[in-house]
Amino acid sequence: MAAIKLHGNMISTATTRVLATLYEKDLEAEFVNVDMKAGEHKKEHFLSKNPFGQVPAFEDGDMTLFESRAITRYICHEYADKGTPLLPPGDSKKKSTISVWMEVEAHQFDPPATLLTWELAIKRLFGLNTDTKVVEENEAKLAKVLDVYETRLAKSKYLGWDCFTLADLHHLPNIEYLMGTRIKEHFDSRPNVSAWVADIRTRPSWLKVLAAHKQ
Amino acid sequence: MAAIKLHGNMISTATTRVLATLYEKDLEAEFVNVDMKAGEHKKEHFLSKNPFGQVPAFEDGDMTLFESRAITRYICHEYADKGTPLLPPGDSKKKSTISVWMEVEAHQFDPPATLLTWELAIKRLFGLNTDTKVVEENEAKLAKVLDVYETRLAKSKYLGWDCFTLADLHHLPNIEYLMGTRIKEHFDSRPNVSAWVADIRTRPSWLKVLAAHKQ
Repeated sequence: MAAIKLHGNMISTATTRVLATLYEKDLEAEFVNVDMKAGEHKKEHFLSKNPFGQVPAFEDGDMTLFESRAITRYICHEYADKGTPLLPPGDSKKKSTISVWMEVEAHQFDPPATLLTWELAIKRLFGLNTDTKVVEENEAKLAKVLDVYETRLAKSKYLGWDCFTLADLHHLPNIEYLMGTRIKEHFDSRPNVSAWVADIRTRPSWLKVLAAHKQ
Repeated sequence: MAAIKLHGNMISTATTRVLATLYEKDLEAEFVNVDMKAGEHKKEHFLSKNPFGQVPAFEDGDMTLFESRAITRYICHEYADKGTPLLPPGDSKKKSTISVWMEVEAHQFDPPATLLTWELAIKRLFGLNTDTKVVEENEAKLAKVLDVYETRLAKSKYLGWDCFTLADLHHLPNIEYLMGTRIKEHFDSRPNVSAWVADIRTRPSWLKVLAAHKQ
């Protein structure tokens, strides 16, 4: 039995964010599927692992964690010597710059990207109607964020530093969904953003996530 | 001239989040007021410090940072030996548990709290109309978050660990605004949440922020 267990669902961006991190770190983990259609994430068994009733929850030995970005940070610190150093060691300038761009993902990119993923990708999977007002508002917000990314990526190959870090990885689940929608044009029309997206989407860890999703 | 400069505006929750951290760490800093009414935060001089055109921006010597939660993390790591250890040293369980509750603030509490602060406090300062639908939706979301906090705070005096940490501090600016609105009742009606709010709002660092705001 693996010491690490990831309780999640492959449709969830927060779940695949953690799974990609585990693959980057070459860690073995048991994936426990949470049947969200059956409401398993709102039942006591799961709520004891994450009181907010959201996937994923994560176990490593006797420790239980939730919130995807806290889990990925934990994995990087706990298994610093394994796989890709997604939070590479360095001076305070390097660490704090990566930290700034991780916060940018969480507070600038994620809110519009998550709403667009919901409206244009996930709602359609379930046959729900798209709210065009929400799409318009968040498309405009995302475009402004990508303008800043275009400038940043002209100076730095990756968002946080000159190597692939958690600041990039955290974007992958929403980007993957959005590349299957008309929002793709906002990424494609910006050369530096487009090259960055092409690079990070083809990392072996992410291809492994996509392969697992298709199973 | 202080090595640390905080460019911000006292009306901004992200600015006072950083200021409270500086006070907890007993650090001297120069406060540079950004005149948001005059649109200074959207001008080139400020955009060179924060490309998203949002306060605050932070300078320490030759380093410039933005995103309030990246700045507070930086301050805690860089000045670990000064003032309150807001990210106290410890084993991976302690560190990752504090990290989980910092993410909870950022992704569960902050989105509804920020919208409620905007609708019920800041809009009124500027004579704008409150959107009651937004208030209703986010009031319900916040109440669910506070239910989880009530249970958490029955087991732990503070949210992240048994001492005051960044996981608590990051809440203060929105809580302060909301305690001046009818949302106060949601905090008051939960005994553990109410005691926690009373405790963290009366920390000397926060009283100093409020005194600075009144000047």
